[in-house]
Amino acid sequence: MSATILSGSELAKSMRAEIEADVQAFVKAHGYAPTAAIVRAGEDPASISYSNALEKALGARGLGFKLHTLPGNASQKEIVGLVAKLNADKTVHGIMVQEPLPKGIDEAAVKEAMSPDKDVDGVHPVNTGRLAQAAPAGRPPMVGPFFVPATPAGGMEILKRNKVNLLGKHAVVVGRSNIVGKPMALLLLRENASVSICHSQTADLPGMCRTADILCAAVGKANMIKGYWIKPGAIVIDFGVNFAGDKMVGDVDFEEAVKVAGMITPVPGGTGPMTNIMLMKNVIEAAKRQVK
Amino acid sequence: MSATILSGSELAKSMRAEIEADVQAFVKAHGYAPTAAIVRAGEDPASISYSNALEKALGARGLGFKLHTLPGNASQKEIVGLVAKLNADKTVHGIMVQEPLPKGIDEAAVKEAMSPDKDVDGVHPVNTGRLAQAAPAGRPPMVGPFFVPATPAGGMEILKRNKVNLLGKHAVVVGRSNIVGKPMALLLLRENASVSICHSQTADLPGMCRTADILCAAVGKANMIKGYWIKPGAIVIDFGVNFAGDKMVGDVDFEEAVKVAGMITPVPGGTGPMTNIMLMKNVIEAAKRQVK
Repeated sequence: MSATILSGSELAKSMRAEIEADVQAFVKAHGYAPTAAIVRAGEDPASISYSNALEKALGARGLGFKLHTLPGNASQKEIVGLVAKLNADKTVHGIMVQEPLPKGIDEAAVKEAMSPDKDVDGVHPVNTGRLAQAAPAGRPPMVGPFFVPATPAGGMEILKRNKVNLLGKHAVVVGRSNIVGKPMALLLLRENASVSICHSQTADLPGMCRTADILCAAVGKANMIKGYWIKPGAIVIDFGVNFAGDKMVGDVDFEEAVKVAGMITPVPGGTGPMTNIMLMKNVIEAAKRQVK
Repeated sequence: MSATILSGSELAKSMRAEIEADVQAFVKAHGYAPTAAIVRAGEDPASISYSNALEKALGARGLGFKLHTLPGNASQKEIVGLVAKLNADKTVHGIMVQEPLPKGIDEAAVKEAMSPDKDVDGVHPVNTGRLAQAAPAGRPPMVGPFFVPATPAGGMEILKRNKVNLLGKHAVVVGRSNIVGKPMALLLLRENASVSICHSQTADLPGMCRTADILCAAVGKANMIKGYWIKPGAIVIDFGVNFAGDKMVGDVDFEEAVKVAGMITPVPGGTGPMTNIMLMKNVIEAAKRQVK
């Protein structure tokens, strides 16, 4: 038996048309494109290549992109000042501040300097708090509007578009980062799954994973989750982006897992391609909200 | 075998002296007492009796208390206006808005109208978000200061003062309210437990509970959790406050559970008495922060 492959690449491809249609409708109605601004301080190579890739991706869908760079020794005041300027700039609808920030910068204060309404990465505590407080899906959320970090939002979109039923199911999230693990857990909880969060300190990680109907991996360790950690027929969402030699691999040992799981996202081509799609959706949503 | 009883009453009694010493030191240093303001709209009997009890409790420890009432048909603007006045009032360090609010009031907007620095109930999304984002205990939190809702904070204090080791243990929280279940889960996660959140939609609730080293109940259903749901030797924290006839009972069937658990909080006399203690700690902490 071999698992159904949940292709994020295919889904992302099909969603590009939706994004383009949304952008075109927005431009037609308002005369300008939803636009994201990226703030980068210094010349971190990964950060540069990310912003280049993002510029290309957004441009290809008709979205606006503005890069704002500061020197690698930029002060807290300069960074926060730039964020404040972008908050006030009506031609900018979404703001992302790239990490790493220079040493000594208070990252929490920079995050909170962003207007939550422009925080398309979902990193401001107001957005995290509203997500955490929001009522389960299908009910009025009883909180203000919020943005969800794009990577877990992409994982949820894969589950949703593949009609995975989460109600009452046991979802296990391995990893508790602020950008993937914790928001993924909160999103699954909103969909009425029972949710377990495991991490490096978990006593019996294979045993916990084996209880999962839906297993989400976001630890950043190549091929860590073995086939025998997976309940037969489980749905596996792999957020890992690791390199084993030259080869990009996930947190899940795909070769083993594909024989046991019911459905599985590959790496590459799984959750990765969905991240930009969800980020673009957030930028469009931010622009729409700011019209109101 | 019979479980060790984790008495919240005894712990609360012993902590009153700590609270009084903190209050006295604050008064000596600053010439005024840390003071909480309660906002109530209408005459809900439970809300009235809560605020009376709170006034008495705070007064007994030397803390200040101010009750602000509005009519039961108060408008959004009036309620938010009062909250804004209290935000600006330097003689008020903590603000609590009592529920229920009148029909038609946007409760989320009222919560967010509060200054997070005075939100001693920990209900503002900024406080929830900082709690959710905070790094595990023992590391720099990497977020701004935050308040935790008093009830789960009290449960954690019981665990801590009874030297319960949480690292790597499996904690199961039954219930996902914003005021108990979800913040309790986040607090346990910060202490490096693996944390599972269950609720009314959980497929096999007894089975999930039986995997818990630490079982926290916050569902509001009298005696729901039976003895056979509990792993022998587990630690049970019962947040339930229910009435079976005239008798106050928890969410856990205490008579059965006490024979199976290793440690258990009783109801009454368990987590309940700790709530006011932790709220007072928050009021003192708020006053201290506002001095800075």
